[in-house]
Amino acid sequence: MSRSQPAIIVHGGAVSRHSYSLSAWRASVEDAARAGWAVLEKSGGTALDAVEAAIRSMESNPVCNAGIGSCLTSDGRVEMDAIIMNGSNLDVGAVACVNSVENPVTLARKVMEKTDHVLLVGEGANQFAAAEQTGIPTVSKETLITEQRKSELEKFRQFRKAVKADFNVQIDGGGHDTVGAVALDSSGNLAAGTSTGGITGKLPGRVGDVPIVGCGVYADNSIGAASTTGHGESIAKVTLARQALWFVEAGRSPDEAAKDALDGMLSRVRGRGGIIIISKDARIGFNCSTDDMAWAYCNAREGLKSGTNCHSSK
Amino acid sequence: MSRSQPAIIVHGGAVSRHSYSLSAWRASVEDAARAGWAVLEKSGGTALDAVEAAIRSMESNPVCNAGIGSCLTSDGRVEMDAIIMNGSNLDVGAVACVNSVENPVTLARKVMEKTDHVLLVGEGANQFAAAEQTGIPTVSKETLITEQRKSELEKFRQFRKAVKADFNVQIDGGGHDTVGAVALDSSGNLAAGTSTGGITGKLPGRVGDVPIVGCGVYADNSIGAASTTGHGESIAKVTLARQALWFVEAGRSPDEAAKDALDGMLSRVRGRGGIIIISKDARIGFNCSTDDMAWAYCNAREGLKSGTNCHSSK
Repeated sequence: MSRSQPAIIVHGGAVSRHSYSLSAWRASVEDAARAGWAVLEKSGGTALDAVEAAIRSMESNPVCNAGIGSCLTSDGRVEMDAIIMNGSNLDVGAVACVNSVENPVTLARKVMEKTDHVLLVGEGANQFAAAEQTGIPTVSKETLITEQRKSELEKFRQFRKAVKADFNVQIDGGGHDTVGAVALDSSGNLAAGTSTGGITGKLPGRVGDVPIVGCGVYADNSIGAASTTGHGESIAKVTLARQALWFVEAGRSPDEAAKDALDGMLSRVRGRGGIIIISKDARIGFNCSTDDMAWAYCNAREGLKSGTNCHSSK
Repeated sequence: MSRSQPAIIVHGGAVSRHSYSLSAWRASVEDAARAGWAVLEKSGGTALDAVEAAIRSMESNPVCNAGIGSCLTSDGRVEMDAIIMNGSNLDVGAVACVNSVENPVTLARKVMEKTDHVLLVGEGANQFAAAEQTGIPTVSKETLITEQRKSELEKFRQFRKAVKADFNVQIDGGGHDTVGAVALDSSGNLAAGTSTGGITGKLPGRVGDVPIVGCGVYADNSIGAASTTGHGESIAKVTLARQALWFVEAGRSPDEAAKDALDGMLSRVRGRGGIIIISKDARIGFNCSTDDMAWAYCNAREGLKSGTNCHSSK
């Protein structure tokens, strides 16, 4: 097996309006990239472990819309989605509409490793979380709900009452801030993961792009790996992560592939978002078609880099 | 808008061992193709209506593993998944783990047309089904359960008790018989849909490839439309429907694209299945890597054709 240069890139969501501090948001992705890099630096540290560590860091950070601090459904509950994919064998695990764990990405990994399935949803997924074989501590629903998200739901409800006919405006302006990570380890294995609380005021049972393989995530050692963020329904319609990797496969750089896939989504279904990519040859790329996207990456050559938009740093 | 030649193709699943009569299986796909063709023959009949009509026919037929006659979960319940996609604008609607309607494809279409979301799952999806705006009659859970499926679950349980370590053998040999339809209407619009009861003995909450856009279905007027069947977890790993349409986009015939996508799935993740495709220029193609796949298609030039494998007729 050839040695490759390890690398990790994470995102904290792509948004066009945000209600929290840019510095806290940037700190959350820097912490996550450090957590993932710490895994990759160790001898034998795997891309899969690095992705999981990075996403766990953001899920446990109330600033991010995943795990603690997830957006609330129209009836005030948390329903989280997460996915993780192993580029070496295309194994994938995902959960949707879970409300009983702090780190859905770890539950997604258990689906991948402990079941014959790729996606468990709703009560079945919560039952699986509670099963002894999973070994994941369950938490009360209240643990996951923050004052910030309650107040966002209240604003959403007032807004919807006032402008019922124009429901989409609020959906599009709300928090699309999924979190995600992509890593390459020294053995040449790629992995990617994505996790989210969804969007404020979503219908109970709504699942966006995140746990949908090819949309929220794709990873294939023979091409690269990608994690996406943005308007979930638009991302699903164009299978955004897989599309971006097709462009990489066709010879475009990860930066170009991310931009071209996002441009395609904007022109075809008028949706905006962001993508992070690492190619099989360790090139890092990212782009967003929203105003802001929190990102951070780390490799041996450049150290830690981060930002909250896709313009100034490129 | 240019006129095109309408066409419809349906499948009743791809399997390597089956426990029901080939003639009843073939009759079920012929009935479905006729139901879809009746829509397309009418002035203004749309691909979307044709796909829905064809799939409803198979969901209401207890021979097929969708709607009435769905496979049962490990705890003896029905959990159905369905998806429908409109190739003209990439709109998509899907449901997973629903148990309260006879025709999940119609519920999936309501998600597409009546919500801002693309996928609703579990109790949220059942609540949506019961909502007045949906206008779909709900049915009791017992209506959906047949004696045949109860006996299959009993066999599965006995088998698993005997050969616990070799769980995958039974999963791979069991009923993968999803149903699906793809149609092109005279306005040049493409649509595709897929519906399933899943696999016998699945964990509660398990969702396979069917409601996953790009895996169980994809439709894009600028390329073609596809519906897949087979081992759901394998189909998900390779985003099979989207992959097949990429091959069509790259210039391969629908038959070649179906075969190449299935060959890729077999070599990469050792999964088997089937695909039906209509290209934007009205070419019909299909293939399967299992022993059998029930299929039927209809267009003005050839009338109704059908079969239960992919070899003799091609």
